[in-house]
Amino acid sequence: MAKEGITPRSTDYSRWYLDIVRAADMADYAEVVRGCIVFKPTGYAVWEAIQRGLDDRIKATGHSNVYFPLLIPKSFILKEAEHVEGFTPELAEVTRAGGEELTEPYVIRPTSETIIGYYYAKWVQSYRDLPLLLNQWANVMRWEKRTRPFLRTSEFLWQEGHTVHASEEDAERETLMILHDVYGDFLEKEMALPVIKGLKTENEKFAGALRSYALEAMMQDGKALQAGTSHNLGQNFARAFDITYSDQHNQIQHAWTTSWGVSSRLIGALIMAHSDDDGLVLPPRLAPIQVVLVPIYRTDSERAQVMEAAARITGPFKGRIRFKVDDRDNLTPGFKYNEWELKGVPVRVELGPRDIEKGTVALARRDIPGKAGKEFVPQEGLIDRIEALLVSIQQGLYDRALAFQKAHMRDVTTYEELRHAVETGFGRAYWAGGATDERRIQEELKATIRVIPLDQPDRAGRCIVTGQETGQQVIVARAY
Amino acid sequence: MAKEGITPRSTDYSRWYLDIVRAADMADYAEVVRGCIVFKPTGYAVWEAIQRGLDDRIKATGHSNVYFPLLIPKSFILKEAEHVEGFTPELAEVTRAGGEELTEPYVIRPTSETIIGYYYAKWVQSYRDLPLLLNQWANVMRWEKRTRPFLRTSEFLWQEGHTVHASEEDAERETLMILHDVYGDFLEKEMALPVIKGLKTENEKFAGALRSYALEAMMQDGKALQAGTSHNLGQNFARAFDITYSDQHNQIQHAWTTSWGVSSRLIGALIMAHSDDDGLVLPPRLAPIQVVLVPIYRTDSERAQVMEAAARITGPFKGRIRFKVDDRDNLTPGFKYNEWELKGVPVRVELGPRDIEKGTVALARRDIPGKAGKEFVPQEGLIDRIEALLVSIQQGLYDRALAFQKAHMRDVTTYEELRHAVETGFGRAYWAGGATDERRIQEELKATIRVIPLDQPDRAGRCIVTGQETGQQVIVARAY
Repeated sequence: MAKEGITPRSTDYSRWYLDIVRAADMADYAEVVRGCIVFKPTGYAVWEAIQRGLDDRIKATGHSNVYFPLLIPKSFILKEAEHVEGFTPELAEVTRAGGEELTEPYVIRPTSETIIGYYYAKWVQSYRDLPLLLNQWANVMRWEKRTRPFLRTSEFLWQEGHTVHASEEDAERETLMILHDVYGDFLEKEMALPVIKGLKTENEKFAGALRSYALEAMMQDGKALQAGTSHNLGQNFARAFDITYSDQHNQIQHAWTTSWGVSSRLIGALIMAHSDDDGLVLPPRLAPIQVVLVPIYRTDSERAQVMEAAARITGPFKGRIRFKVDDRDNLTPGFKYNEWELKGVPVRVELGPRDIEKGTVALARRDIPGKAGKEFVPQEGLIDRIEALLVSIQQGLYDRALAFQKAHMRDVTTYEELRHAVETGFGRAYWAGGATDERRIQEELKATIRVIPLDQPDRAGRCIVTGQETGQQVIVARAY
Repeated sequence: MAKEGITPRSTDYSRWYLDIVRAADMADYAEVVRGCIVFKPTGYAVWEAIQRGLDDRIKATGHSNVYFPLLIPKSFILKEAEHVEGFTPELAEVTRAGGEELTEPYVIRPTSETIIGYYYAKWVQSYRDLPLLLNQWANVMRWEKRTRPFLRTSEFLWQEGHTVHASEEDAERETLMILHDVYGDFLEKEMALPVIKGLKTENEKFAGALRSYALEAMMQDGKALQAGTSHNLGQNFARAFDITYSDQHNQIQHAWTTSWGVSSRLIGALIMAHSDDDGLVLPPRLAPIQVVLVPIYRTDSERAQVMEAAARITGPFKGRIRFKVDDRDNLTPGFKYNEWELKGVPVRVELGPRDIEKGTVALARRDIPGKAGKEFVPQEGLIDRIEALLVSIQQGLYDRALAFQKAHMRDVTTYEELRHAVETGFGRAYWAGGATDERRIQEELKATIRVIPLDQPDRAGRCIVTGQETGQQVIVARAY
């Protein structure tokens, strides 16, 4: 039975998602600014946890953070042919500022390759300046017609890495390193999201890239969500912006660049991958609050006794666990349980006068609702038990998501099988088709080739649309 | 003698500032986007350190982070009379988006009281919802005619806190708590900046505020820099946006709001308060790298020996000190010393073959240039010595800045004395003048009343412009 105010997933998955966003205090999506949302405290705290996990990995792999201007001269966008075509329909333009009409409008960055390209051309002179490894955390804007909180909004928050290299091999190594060691590692270890990594087709690649790699995750309705992308831009932007360097032999060469990003849509991924009909479910490593202690009392003297015990019990938590003692008066324990369940806190500790007598607490895990996830345990050794429980919940969420992904991944050999597969999950098919075949799938099945996975089979098979023999498989799915 | 490429402060303070910004790799201020800069790695790393120090204090005092839209419907700005007047000349407007002309333009937030006011009116219903204590980290835009990196740019980075309270007293308590416990504490303890706290005059207050408080710091040229502001907005925005709540007696009341912010101009303050003719000087608590170890060697075997010793010596630093071993080849130690001096690293450790023989290292402190700041110390106990040295440098920078502030603060009793005082520092004067007198000072002396300090004298004196007896003193200075 679902909570009051939350539509069960089985009734209407899309409605359920919006209910969770609202009930867990993640976002306000009143459209006073077209397609934009407010990140409310729970939503923003999750974003801060995502930022921390990614930022650590980005820095550990040798990148520095920087910040480039929000506005881009419109002429910059026009310099790379595919880039113009890809982004022009989505641009927001500043045409008036300081009380005057501007002679050249600015656009609000939809992504920053062009403005960064301008500066890189100035900064990069010699092979000694390479590689140049920078990243920025920023807001970006793409004017969207149909929006959904976190998943697709006109303004969103993201990080965008932009690097410059002396050779194609170096650029490709960077692109794949980000895919595996930064994004893959983060998504699987911190977000408990199993992902399929692969190459995008020509149709689906980033506007201006040589090759785009992506990580695709499966949501609980079987649809795909692109969780991150890493692009080898080749020399496209280097040519458009004249990013050149003199090599060891004093020859001027065009550089090779990459860009890669993940955005606040990961908050949506987190909700849709793990949450249930009782509210948000957060992986412990990303949970802003990992443990909440709810005191139970009736009288003032019971309150004093319980609060004192709560302070004693949580004393050792400091610096090891992110916790909160919910000491709000005038709210029943039941009300508090409900609120913290909605907000996805992984572990709840209940403590009342009888527990104090017995030297125990009740421990409830969020990922297993109801009695099955609750046990009475001794206060002694509680912190070790909770730390172990957090690890176990983290692993449990990953395992559950992986099992779901496997159960909803179908190897298909006919178009009809594919049609069925994408209704409940991913279809994996041999593919030697072209852009026209891809468009046909999109129109008929409302599905796209998500990636050409890096993991490919040992033997060949027949293409699902052309019948040709091919060694290449693709993943097809409906996507957010 | 100043470094190559750095104009001495005594020659041209303004040029010196720009030279430090460039030489320390703080920013690129090529004006491809009107009035905007690029935060380069050193500059952004300092901003991250500032964010961390402030964010910890903002959260510790009960506030949560959130994120509101970048764009604000232009009509919102028009709702609060003083606010319109203050910000209209500086607005950047989005008039076209997604390929269409907009029926109502948006402005890029110059500050967010209005868009936040709209949401607060929805969220606040009852006294139980109060206080509402939120903060956001964001970019904002004010179209500026004359710009200077970090100090005044069209786009800048900041935090803006926005709170709602049930009474004037609660709002005033919040405003002052932020002034003292968040901003004052941060500026003095982390940035080593002594500040003068006080009230702004009606002329100088925030557009739309009941009362504005500010913290003013003195730069090395004697000019003032407003390091932070905290505003009691009274019921002005609550009335403009209809932020009401029902009180304990079920009566509908207008709420009281506050807002407060500090921005990336603090990076400029940090440069101008502490740096010298050799480059940046950073307080250890904010330095992205606190200690750099420069290995000295001629041969490969020396290199191997020195690098092994460097690893051994810095092993215990991990988790206690932010350090870097500069293992770059093909650069001389002298080149490296120069670079880390420019970038303001507080402590340098030099380690060569002779040091290894003797079991010593050379330790150079950035705040005391040349031989006076260098000593040879045993490797044993090095980490404790360095930690003590970092504390001592932090305190030394504060003490030096405080001594400078005191030496350049003059109590003045005549207009002529004030004229002289503002040429080299701050003038403190009794004041009972009005807005016209304030404007006269601004025109004639190019100076403004920075604050009416919270610390006021015990006895009265004669107003410097009207001759009236008054108990109120003000601080007058030229300002950035």
